Amino acid sequence: MRPAVVLFSGGLDSSTCLAIAKEEGFAPHALAVRYGQRHERELEAAERVARAMGSPLKVVTLDLRAIGGSALTGSIDVPKDQPIGGSIPVTYVPARNTVLLALALGYAETIDAQDLYLGVNAIDYSGYPDCRPAFVKAFEDLANVATAAAVEGRARYHIHAPLLRMTKAQIIRRGTDLGVPYALTHSCYDPDPQGRACGRCDSCRLRAQGFRDAGVPDPTAYSPR
Amino acid sequence: MRPAVVLFSGGLDSSTCLAIAKEEGFAPHALAVRYGQRHERELEAAERVARAMGSPLKVVTLDLRAIGGSALTGSIDVPKDQPIGGSIPVTYVPARNTVLLALALGYAETIDAQDLYLGVNAIDYSGYPDCRPAFVKAFEDLANVATAAAVEGRARYHIHAPLLRMTKAQIIRRGTDLGVPYALTHSCYDPDPQGRACGRCDSCRLRAQGFRDAGVPDPTAYSPR
Repeated sequence: MRPAVVLFSGGLDSSTCLAIAKEEGFAPHALAVRYGQRHERELEAAERVARAMGSPLKVVTLDLRAIGGSALTGSIDVPKDQPIGGSIPVTYVPARNTVLLALALGYAETIDAQDLYLGVNAIDYSGYPDCRPAFVKAFEDLANVATAAAVEGRARYHIHAPLLRMTKAQIIRRGTDLGVPYALTHSCYDPDPQGRACGRCDSCRLRAQGFRDAGVPDPTAYSPR
Repeated sequence: MRPAVVLFSGGLDSSTCLAIAKEEGFAPHALAVRYGQRHERELEAAERVARAMGSPLKVVTLDLRAIGGSALTGSIDVPKDQPIGGSIPVTYVPARNTVLLALALGYAETIDAQDLYLGVNAIDYSGYPDCRPAFVKAFEDLANVATAAAVEGRARYHIHAPLLRMTKAQIIRRGTDLGVPYALTHSCYDPDPQGRACGRCDSCRLRAQGFRDAGVPDPTAYSPR
Protein backbone atom coordinates (compact mmCIF):
# COMPACT_ATOMS: atom_id res chain seq x y z
CA MET A 1 0.00 0.00 0.00
CA ARG A 2 1.23 3.50 -0.83
CA PRO A 3 2.01 5.70 2.16
CA ALA A 4 0.10 8.92 2.78
CA VAL A 5 0.68 11.59 5.41
CA VAL A 6 -2.41 12.66 7.35
CA LEU A 7 -2.23 15.90 9.33
CA PHE A 8 -3.67 14.76 12.56
CA SER A 9 -4.92 16.44 15.72
CA GLY A 10 -6.97 13.67 17.27
CA GLY A 11 -10.05 15.72 16.51
CA LEU A 12 -13.21 14.70 14.73
CA ASP A 13 -12.23 15.94 11.29
CA SER A 14 -8.68 14.63 11.09
CA SER A 15 -9.70 11.27 12.54
CA THR A 16 -12.34 10.94 9.84
CA CYS A 17 -9.72 11.97 7.31
CA LEU A 18 -7.42 9.18 8.49
CA ALA A 19 -10.21 6.64 8.03
CA ILE A 20 -10.92 7.96 4.53
CA ALA A 21 -7.24 7.76 3.55
CA LYS A 22 -7.23 4.15 4.64
CA GLU A 23 -10.44 3.43 2.76
CA GLU A 24 -8.95 5.04 -0.35
CA GLY A 25 -6.16 2.47 -0.27
CA PHE A 26 -3.34 4.31 1.48
CA ALA A 27 -1.23 3.33 4.46
CA PRO A 28 -1.77 6.50 6.54
CA HIS A 29 1.07 8.00 8.59
CA ALA A 30 -0.40 10.46 11.07
CA LEU A 31 1.54 13.65 11.78
CA ALA A 32 0.65 15.77 14.81
CA VAL A 33 2.24 19.04 15.80
CA ARG A 34 2.75 20.25 19.35
CA TYR A 35 2.73 23.95 18.50
CA GLY A 36 1.97 25.40 21.91
CA GLN A 37 -1.79 25.10 21.55
CA ARG A 38 -3.53 25.72 24.85
CA HIS A 39 -5.62 22.63 24.16
CA GLU A 40 -2.55 20.41 24.23
CA ARG A 41 -4.88 17.68 25.44
CA GLU A 42 -5.61 17.08 21.78
CA LEU A 43 -2.20 15.41 21.50
CA GLU A 44 -3.25 12.77 24.02
CA ALA A 45 -6.33 12.22 21.87
CA ALA A 46 -4.10 11.99 18.80
CA GLU A 47 -2.14 9.17 20.44
CA ARG A 48 -5.28 7.30 21.56
CA VAL A 49 -7.02 7.61 18.22
CA ALA A 50 -3.99 6.72 16.09
CA ARG A 51 -3.38 3.66 18.25
CA ALA A 52 -7.03 2.60 18.05
CA MET A 53 -6.98 3.03 14.28
CA GLY A 54 -3.69 1.17 13.87
CA SER A 55 -1.69 3.99 12.27
CA PRO A 56 1.80 5.20 13.16
CA LEU A 57 1.90 8.69 14.67
CA LYS A 58 4.77 11.17 14.48
CA VAL A 59 4.72 14.23 16.73
CA VAL A 60 6.75 17.32 15.78
CA THR A 61 7.34 20.09 18.31
CA LEU A 62 7.25 23.70 17.21
CA ASP A 63 6.72 26.66 19.48
CA LEU A 64 4.25 28.92 17.69
CA ARG A 65 3.80 30.86 20.94
CA ALA A 66 7.00 32.66 19.99
CA ILE A 67 5.06 34.13 17.08
CA GLY A 68 1.83 34.77 18.96
CA GLY A 69 -1.20 36.46 17.49
CA SER A 70 -3.85 33.90 18.44
CA ALA A 71 -6.19 32.91 21.24
CA LEU A 72 -5.11 29.31 20.67
CA THR A 73 -1.46 29.93 21.46
CA GLY A 74 -1.46 33.13 23.46
CA SER A 75 -3.04 34.77 26.40
CA ILE A 76 -6.20 35.97 24.64
CA ASP A 77 -9.26 34.12 25.96
CA VAL A 78 -11.01 31.59 23.77
CA PRO A 79 -14.42 33.12 22.91
CA LYS A 80 -17.49 31.28 24.18
CA ASP A 81 -21.06 31.34 22.94
CA GLN A 82 -20.23 33.74 20.11
CA PRO A 83 -21.93 33.72 16.70
CA ILE A 84 -20.03 31.50 14.24
CA GLY A 85 -19.18 32.85 10.80
CA GLY A 86 -18.82 36.41 9.58
CA SER A 87 -15.38 37.63 10.52
CA ILE A 88 -12.31 35.48 11.16
CA PRO A 89 -12.18 34.73 14.90
CA VAL A 90 -9.32 35.31 17.35
CA THR A 91 -8.70 31.56 17.48
CA TYR A 92 -7.18 31.91 14.02
CA VAL A 93 -3.45 31.07 14.28
CA PRO A 94 -1.47 33.12 11.75
CA ALA A 95 -0.46 30.87 8.84
CA ARG A 96 -1.07 27.74 10.91
CA ASN A 97 -2.19 25.40 8.16
CA THR A 98 0.60 26.68 5.93
CA VAL A 99 3.10 25.74 8.63
CA LEU A 100 1.45 22.38 9.33
CA LEU A 101 1.24 21.42 5.66
CA ALA A 102 4.85 22.47 5.15
CA LEU A 103 5.86 20.05 7.91
CA ALA A 104 3.64 17.34 6.41
CA LEU A 105 5.29 17.92 3.05
CA GLY A 106 8.76 17.51 4.53
CA TYR A 107 7.65 14.32 6.26
CA ALA A 108 6.02 13.02 3.08
CA GLU A 109 9.19 13.60 1.11
CA THR A 110 11.19 11.76 3.76
CA ILE A 111 8.97 8.65 3.74
CA ASP A 112 8.37 8.72 -0.04
CA ALA A 113 4.69 9.59 0.23
CA GLN A 114 3.11 11.73 -2.48
CA ASP A 115 -0.29 12.09 -0.90
CA LEU A 116 -1.17 14.42 1.96
CA TYR A 117 -4.52 14.43 3.70
CA LEU A 118 -5.83 17.55 5.39
CA GLY A 119 -9.11 17.55 7.30
CA VAL A 120 -10.15 21.10 6.48
CA ASN A 121 -13.76 21.89 5.89
CA ALA A 122 -15.27 24.99 4.31
CA ILE A 123 -18.91 24.43 5.24
CA ASP A 124 -19.35 24.04 8.99
CA TYR A 125 -16.24 25.92 9.98
CA SER A 126 -15.05 29.00 11.78
CA GLY A 127 -14.10 31.03 8.72
CA TYR A 128 -10.36 30.40 8.74
CA PRO A 129 -8.77 31.44 5.43
CA ASP A 130 -6.49 28.42 5.36
CA CYS A 131 -9.44 26.01 5.27
CA ARG A 132 -10.65 27.04 1.82
CA PRO A 133 -10.30 25.35 -1.60
CA ALA A 134 -8.09 28.19 -2.92
CA PHE A 135 -5.63 27.53 -0.09
CA VAL A 136 -5.50 23.79 -0.73
CA LYS A 137 -4.91 24.34 -4.44
CA ALA A 138 -2.18 26.96 -3.85
CA PHE A 139 -0.37 24.66 -1.44
CA GLU A 140 -0.47 21.77 -3.91
CA ASP A 141 1.07 24.03 -6.57
CA LEU A 142 3.77 25.06 -4.12
CA ALA A 143 4.55 21.47 -3.10
CA ASN A 144 5.27 20.56 -6.68
CA VAL A 145 7.97 23.19 -7.10
CA ALA A 146 9.33 23.19 -3.53
CA THR A 147 10.67 19.67 -3.17
CA ALA A 148 13.55 17.66 -4.54
CA ALA A 149 11.25 14.70 -5.17
CA ALA A 150 8.91 16.75 -7.40
CA VAL A 151 11.66 18.66 -9.20
CA GLU A 152 13.53 15.43 -9.95
CA GLY A 153 10.32 13.82 -11.23
CA ARG A 154 10.09 11.20 -8.47
CA ALA A 155 6.87 12.57 -7.02
CA ARG A 156 3.75 14.48 -7.95
CA TYR A 157 2.18 15.73 -4.74
CA HIS A 158 -1.52 15.69 -4.19
CA ILE A 159 -3.26 17.42 -1.29
CA HIS A 160 -6.44 15.55 -0.43
CA ALA A 161 -9.07 17.50 1.46
CA PRO A 162 -11.95 15.03 1.38
CA LEU A 163 -14.04 16.93 3.96
CA LEU A 164 -13.80 20.26 2.18
CA ARG A 165 -17.36 20.41 0.92
CA MET A 166 -19.06 18.16 3.47
CA THR A 167 -21.26 19.37 6.30
CA LYS A 168 -20.27 18.35 9.81
CA ALA A 169 -23.22 15.94 9.84
CA GLN A 170 -22.04 14.31 6.60
CA ILE A 171 -18.53 13.98 8.04
CA ILE A 172 -19.89 12.29 11.15
CA ARG A 173 -22.07 9.91 9.18
CA ARG A 174 -19.17 9.00 6.91
CA GLY A 175 -16.84 8.46 9.85
CA THR A 176 -19.43 6.43 11.72
CA ASP A 177 -19.75 4.14 8.68
CA LEU A 178 -15.96 3.78 8.64
CA GLY A 179 -15.80 2.99 12.36
CA VAL A 180 -14.01 6.12 13.56
CA PRO A 181 -13.82 5.95 17.38
CA TYR A 182 -15.33 9.39 17.97
CA ALA A 183 -15.51 8.82 21.73
CA LEU A 184 -11.69 8.97 21.76
CA THR A 185 -11.44 12.17 19.73
CA HIS A 186 -11.02 15.68 21.12
CA SER A 187 -12.23 18.92 19.50
CA CYS A 188 -12.53 21.50 22.30
CA TYR A 189 -10.30 24.58 22.23
CA ASP A 190 -10.53 25.07 25.99
CA PRO A 191 -10.99 21.79 27.87
CA ASP A 192 -11.32 21.64 31.66
CA PRO A 193 -8.51 20.23 33.83
CA GLN A 194 -9.96 16.73 33.42
CA GLY A 195 -9.80 17.14 29.64
CA ARG A 196 -13.56 17.41 29.22
CA ALA A 197 -14.96 19.62 26.47
CA CYS A 198 -16.25 23.10 27.37
CA GLY A 199 -19.25 22.76 25.06
CA ARG A 200 -19.22 26.49 24.35
CA CYS A 201 -16.32 27.31 22.03
CA ASP A 202 -16.88 27.33 18.25
CA SER A 203 -15.28 23.94 17.88
CA CYS A 204 -17.48 22.29 20.53
CA ARG A 205 -20.65 23.81 19.19
CA LEU A 206 -19.97 22.86 15.55
CA ARG A 207 -19.23 19.33 16.71
CA ALA A 208 -22.31 18.99 18.92
CA GLN A 209 -24.58 20.37 16.20
CA GLY A 210 -23.00 17.90 13.76
CA PHE A 211 -23.93 14.92 15.93
CA ARG A 212 -27.47 16.26 16.34
CA ASP A 213 -27.87 16.85 12.59
CA ALA A 214 -26.40 13.44 11.77
CA GLY A 215 -28.75 11.70 14.19
CA VAL A 216 -25.73 10.03 15.80
CA PRO A 217 -25.43 9.94 19.62
CA ASP A 218 -22.76 12.43 20.75
CA PRO A 219 -20.13 10.48 22.75
CA THR A 220 -18.28 13.64 23.89
CA ALA A 221 -17.52 14.05 27.61
CA TYR A 222 -18.63 17.59 28.44
CA SER A 223 -17.58 19.57 31.48
CA PRO A 224 -20.51 19.91 33.92
CA ARG A 225 -21.45 23.54 34.62
CA MET B 1 9.09 52.77 8.45
CA ARG B 2 7.11 49.73 7.37
CA PRO B 3 8.12 46.48 9.05
CA ALA B 4 9.50 43.57 7.03
CA VAL B 5 10.35 40.04 8.16
CA VAL B 6 13.77 38.78 7.09
CA LEU B 7 14.43 35.05 7.31
CA PHE B 8 17.74 35.09 9.00
CA SER B 9 20.45 32.53 9.69
CA GLY B 10 23.40 34.76 10.48
CA GLY B 11 24.96 33.62 7.22
CA LEU B 12 26.38 35.69 4.41
CA ASP B 13 23.26 35.72 2.25
CA SER B 14 20.62 36.48 4.87
CA SER B 15 22.81 39.16 6.48
CA THR B 16 23.13 40.86 3.10
CA CYS B 17 19.38 40.49 2.68
CA LEU B 18 18.79 42.26 5.99
CA ALA B 19 20.98 45.16 4.86
CA ILE B 20 19.10 45.38 1.55
CA ALA B 21 15.72 45.39 3.32
CA LYS B 22 16.92 48.29 5.42
CA GLU B 23 18.27 50.12 2.39
CA GLU B 24 14.93 49.61 0.64
CA GLY B 25 13.23 51.52 3.44
CA PHE B 26 11.94 48.79 5.71
CA ALA B 27 12.37 48.24 9.43
CA PRO B 28 13.65 44.64 9.29
CA HIS B 29 12.60 42.08 11.91
CA ALA B 30 14.94 39.10 11.70
CA LEU B 31 13.46 35.64 12.22
CA ALA B 32 15.75 32.69 12.87
CA VAL B 33 14.71 29.09 13.33
CA ARG B 34 16.42 26.57 15.59
CA TYR B 35 15.38 23.51 13.60
CA GLY B 36 17.89 21.00 14.85
CA GLN B 37 20.55 21.97 12.32
CA ARG B 38 23.89 20.40 13.20
CA HIS B 39 25.47 23.78 12.58
CA GLU B 40 23.51 25.35 15.43
CA ARG B 41 26.43 27.72 15.79
CA GLU B 42 24.74 29.75 13.09
CA LEU B 43 22.22 30.91 15.70
CA GLU B 44 25.00 32.53 17.71
CA ALA B 45 26.04 34.28 14.52
CA ALA B 46 22.44 35.33 13.97
CA GLU B 47 22.39 37.00 17.38
CA ARG B 48 25.74 38.74 16.86
CA VAL B 49 24.91 39.98 13.39
CA ALA B 50 21.37 41.16 14.20
CA ARG B 51 22.73 43.05 17.20
CA ALA B 52 25.52 44.62 15.15
CA MET B 53 23.02 45.64 12.47
CA GLY B 54 20.54 47.02 15.00
CA SER B 55 17.60 44.76 14.14
CA PRO B 56 15.35 42.82 16.51
CA LEU B 57 15.74 39.03 16.26
CA LYS B 58 13.08 36.44 17.02
CA VAL B 59 14.11 32.78 17.33
CA VAL B 60 11.54 30.02 16.83
CA THR B 61 12.30 26.45 17.85
CA LEU B 62 11.14 23.56 15.70
CA ASP B 63 12.58 20.08 15.78
CA LEU B 64 12.97 19.05 12.15
CA ARG B 65 15.10 16.11 13.30
CA ALA B 66 11.82 14.35 14.03
CA ILE B 67 11.23 14.39 10.28
CA GLY B 68 14.78 13.56 9.24
CA GLY B 69 15.89 13.00 5.68
CA SER B 70 18.88 15.36 5.60
CA ALA B 71 22.58 15.55 6.38
CA LEU B 72 21.93 18.92 8.03
CA THR B 73 19.57 17.53 10.66
CA GLY B 74 20.40 13.85 10.81
CA SER B 75 23.24 11.45 11.16
CA ILE B 76 24.32 11.48 7.50
CA ASP B 77 27.77 13.11 7.14
CA VAL B 78 28.06 16.51 5.50
CA PRO B 79 29.87 15.94 2.19
CA LYS B 80 33.27 17.58 1.79
CA ASP B 81 35.18 18.52 -1.34
CA GLN B 82 32.40 17.27 -3.62
CA PRO B 83 31.54 18.82 -7.00
CA ILE B 84 28.84 21.50 -6.61
CA GLY B 85 25.80 21.43 -8.88
CA GLY B 86 24.24 18.60 -10.83
CA SER B 87 22.04 16.62 -8.49
CA ILE B 88 20.43 17.90 -5.28
CA PRO B 89 22.84 17.16 -2.40
CA VAL B 90 22.14 15.28 0.86
CA THR B 91 22.29 18.57 2.75
CA TYR B 92 18.87 19.33 1.26
CA VAL B 93 16.34 19.46 4.13
CA PRO B 94 12.93 18.27 2.92
CA ALA B 95 10.63 21.27 2.45
CA ARG B 96 12.84 23.45 4.64
CA ASN B 97 12.29 26.79 2.96
CA THR B 98 8.56 26.06 2.75
CA VAL B 99 8.52 25.54 6.51
CA LEU B 100 10.71 28.59 7.21
CA LEU B 101 8.67 30.88 4.96
CA ALA B 102 5.45 29.60 6.52
CA LEU B 103 6.78 30.63 9.93
CA ALA B 104 7.92 33.97 8.54
CA LEU B 105 4.44 34.48 7.10
CA GLY B 106 2.81 33.81 10.47
CA TYR B 107 5.20 36.22 12.13
CA ALA B 108 4.61 38.85 9.44
CA GLU B 109 0.87 38.59 9.92
CA THR B 110 1.30 39.01 13.67
CA ILE B 111 3.41 42.17 13.41
CA ASP B 112 1.46 43.62 10.46
CA ALA B 113 4.30 43.26 7.99
CA GLN B 114 3.46 42.56 4.35
CA ASP B 115 7.00 42.12 3.11
CA LEU B 116 9.14 39.02 3.60
CA TYR B 117 12.80 38.85 2.64
CA LEU B 118 14.41 35.55 1.75
CA GLY B 119 18.11 35.29 0.95
CA VAL B 120 17.87 32.52 -1.61
CA ASN B 121 20.12 32.52 -4.60
CA ALA B 122 19.82 30.50 -7.78
CA ILE B 123 23.26 31.20 -9.26
CA ASP B 124 26.03 30.18 -6.86
CA TYR B 125 24.02 27.65 -4.93
CA SER B 126 23.82 23.97 -4.13
CA GLY B 127 20.87 23.13 -6.37
CA TYR B 128 18.13 23.17 -3.75
CA PRO B 129 14.66 23.24 -5.36
CA ASP B 130 13.33 25.71 -2.80
CA CYS B 131 15.86 28.36 -3.82
CA ARG B 132 14.43 28.89 -7.31
CA PRO B 133 12.24 31.68 -8.73
CA ALA B 134 9.32 29.28 -9.29
CA PHE B 135 9.33 28.44 -5.59
CA VAL B 136 9.38 32.09 -4.51
CA LYS B 137 6.48 32.90 -6.84
CA ALA B 138 4.41 29.90 -5.71
CA PHE B 139 4.90 30.83 -2.06
CA GLU B 140 3.83 34.41 -2.69
CA ASP B 141 0.65 33.15 -4.35
CA LEU B 142 0.01 30.88 -1.38
CA ALA B 143 0.59 33.66 1.16
CA ASN B 144 -2.11 35.75 -0.44
CA VAL B 145 -4.80 33.10 -0.01
CA ALA B 146 -3.57 31.56 3.26
CA THR B 147 -3.85 34.45 5.69
CA ALA B 148 -6.61 36.40 7.35
CA ALA B 149 -4.84 39.67 6.59
CA ALA B 150 -4.78 38.98 2.84
CA VAL B 151 -8.29 37.52 2.66
CA GLU B 152 -9.70 40.49 4.55
CA GLY B 153 -7.87 42.90 2.26
CA ARG B 154 -5.57 44.28 4.96
CA ALA B 155 -2.40 42.95 3.36
CA ARG B 156 -0.89 42.02 0.04
CA TYR B 157 2.16 39.88 0.75
CA HIS B 158 5.31 40.24 -1.25
CA ILE B 159 8.24 37.81 -1.05
CA HIS B 160 11.46 39.66 -1.78
CA ALA B 161 14.38 37.54 -2.93
CA PRO B 162 16.86 40.24 -3.89
CA LEU B 163 19.81 37.84 -4.21
CA LEU B 164 18.02 35.41 -6.50
CA ARG B 165 19.89 36.28 -9.67
CA MET B 166 23.13 37.61 -8.18
CA THR B 167 26.44 35.77 -8.15
CA LYS B 168 28.08 35.24 -4.77
CA ALA B 169 30.67 37.87 -5.72
CA GLN B 170 27.93 40.40 -6.53
CA ILE B 171 26.24 39.65 -3.20
CA ILE B 172 29.50 40.24 -1.33
CA ARG B 173 30.23 43.47 -3.16
CA ARG B 174 26.71 44.74 -2.49
CA GLY B 175 26.91 43.77 1.17
CA THR B 176 30.34 45.31 1.55
CA ASP B 177 28.97 48.59 0.17
CA LEU B 178 26.14 48.38 2.70
CA GLY B 179 28.51 47.68 5.59
CA VAL B 180 27.46 44.10 6.36
CA PRO B 181 29.78 42.79 9.11
CA TYR B 182 30.80 39.64 7.25
CA ALA B 183 33.42 38.77 9.88
CA LEU B 184 30.51 38.05 12.26
CA THR B 185 28.57 35.87 9.84
CA HIS B 186 28.64 32.07 9.72
CA SER B 187 28.06 29.91 6.65
CA CYS B 188 29.72 26.54 7.36
CA TYR B 189 27.55 23.40 7.57
CA ASP B 190 30.03 21.58 9.77
CA PRO B 191 32.05 23.95 11.99
CA ASP B 192 34.73 22.69 14.38
CA PRO B 193 34.19 22.76 18.17
CA GLN B 194 35.53 26.35 18.29
CA GLY B 195 32.95 27.38 15.70
CA ARG B 196 35.48 27.82 12.92
CA ALA B 197 34.48 27.04 9.34
CA CYS B 198 35.55 23.70 7.80
CA GLY B 199 36.40 25.33 4.48
CA ARG B 200 35.39 22.19 2.60
CA CYS B 201 31.60 21.88 2.57
CA ASP B 202 29.59 23.35 -0.33
CA SER B 203 28.63 26.36 1.72
CA CYS B 204 32.22 27.21 2.72
CA ARG B 205 33.55 26.77 -0.78
CA LEU B 206 30.85 28.91 -2.43
CA ARG B 207 31.54 31.60 0.17
CA ALA B 208 35.33 31.52 -0.18
CA GLN B 209 35.12 31.61 -3.97
CA GLY B 210 32.73 34.56 -3.69
CA PHE B 211 35.24 36.61 -1.69
CA ARG B 212 38.00 35.74 -4.18
CA ASP B 213 35.81 36.67 -7.17
CA ALA B 214 34.67 39.89 -5.50
CA GLY B 215 38.24 40.91 -4.72
CA VAL B 216 37.23 41.38 -1.08
CA PRO B 217 39.44 39.97 1.72
CA ASP B 218 37.79 36.88 3.24
CA PRO B 219 37.32 37.54 7.00
CA THR B 220 36.20 33.96 7.75
CA ALA B 221 37.94 32.07 10.58
CA TYR B 222 38.81 28.68 9.10
CA SER B 223 39.66 25.57 11.08
CA PRO B 224 43.40 24.81 10.74
CA ARG B 225 44.11 21.33 9.33
